[in-house]
Amino acid sequence: MAAAAPPPPPSAAPEPSMAAPETTPIGHPVFTRIRLATPSDVPFIHKLIHQMAVFERLSHLCSATESSLSSNLFLSPPFHSFTIFLLELSSSPIPPLLSPSPSFTPIEKTFNFDIPVNDPEKDAFSIYYGDQQVIIGGFVLFFPNYSTFLGKPGFYVEDLFVRECYRRKGFGKMLLSAVAKQAVKMGYGRVEWVVLDWNVNAITFYEQMGAKVLPEWRICRLTGDALQAYQNANV
Amino acid sequence: MAAAAPPPPPSAAPEPSMAAPETTPIGHPVFTRIRLATPSDVPFIHKLIHQMAVFERLSHLCSATESSLSSNLFLSPPFHSFTIFLLELSSSPIPPLLSPSPSFTPIEKTFNFDIPVNDPEKDAFSIYYGDQQVIIGGFVLFFPNYSTFLGKPGFYVEDLFVRECYRRKGFGKMLLSAVAKQAVKMGYGRVEWVVLDWNVNAITFYEQMGAKVLPEWRICRLTGDALQAYQNANV
Repeated sequence: MAAAAPPPPPSAAPEPSMAAPETTPIGHPVFTRIRLATPSDVPFIHKLIHQMAVFERLSHLCSATESSLSSNLFLSPPFHSFTIFLLELSSSPIPPLLSPSPSFTPIEKTFNFDIPVNDPEKDAFSIYYGDQQVIIGGFVLFFPNYSTFLGKPGFYVEDLFVRECYRRKGFGKMLLSAVAKQAVKMGYGRVEWVVLDWNVNAITFYEQMGAKVLPEWRICRLTGDALQAYQNANV
Repeated sequence: MAAAAPPPPPSAAPEPSMAAPETTPIGHPVFTRIRLATPSDVPFIHKLIHQMAVFERLSHLCSATESSLSSNLFLSPPFHSFTIFLLELSSSPIPPLLSPSPSFTPIEKTFNFDIPVNDPEKDAFSIYYGDQQVIIGGFVLFFPNYSTFLGKPGFYVEDLFVRECYRRKGFGKMLLSAVAKQAVKMGYGRVEWVVLDWNVNAITFYEQMGAKVLPEWRICRLTGDALQAYQNANV
């Protein structure tokens, strides 16, 4: 994709010209698509999860393997259990899926950037549709939750991740919006996720998307040996 | 059940007697059972949810109806989506279920209390197994969540509620332990829920059960008009 080309030197910037048609695209188009992940995407998902763990400085807590992901994901129809949207990017229009899911019509959007994105891991995140190279740029993993007060389901977003070179370009918003749009489509009442209280940039971003941060609630977690202790508990 | 009988006056307390066999039960036995809820339990579940909303002073936010609950619960096999355990109580051993779920063997436990429980809403929460009256004392609603770091599912506990007259007797612990035990049985990695940061009694209770409270995470919620705005969003 165009992102791999080095930016032109300033002197190479196109000069204004009366002859240029007004519709000539300026900059670097990036064609994007959000689609449902499939079992064949697990190697990408695994790499993305580990990048996320490194970014959060929690890689020592990340024990997911391709095998564990394969055995736990894709067991139910999309949206009824753990569901992953992948973000695909290309410098050319992305070919239609050969086997589209009846549950979800991919969302496509074209961005136009002033400078190309330099993706140092392009090859490790490439999919080929025929001859066309498409890059996996990020993902969102979500699943249904339930509000007894509303008496209806919602979605809980466990992870939202965009690879470093593609950040601050609107792709995170695109992924989260896709989940919100799907929630509305299904008549669901809420979309929820968590954020670290010191992550002011993230909080501002989420508030701009219409979310409220709930100040009083804290997560309780029972895990590890403390959870295993219940195996034979006389409850 | 025995709970409906007024407590005997102090003078009626049984005198110690050499003649009494040592195995004579002292006090008021309460036979309990945790079982999977079924669609026919929806009227009880609806009442319990509304009691919980009143207790939390959030009844103005509670719009669940029997109809909304019926249309959203019990659509998947137990534990694969929204799942409810009900707590049943009786002064006599509870008869076996006629149609037990193959997914879950009910958990039974007998408590013995010094004084009987006075349940002013006994009739509204009664089920009859033949002639035997059994009382619904509380519920826990939970569903699978997913940890990408662990690469495996867990359970999220949305609600844990015990009716007022049955509190501080170990029933809440029994319900939450049943969820933890089921998580271990299924090889799941976590059980999570939320608590209000000012609810010190609840936090102490959860910590005694082995849970950690995560201090830094905050819940983000997109709901109402802010969510509906994504219906036609060009994400």
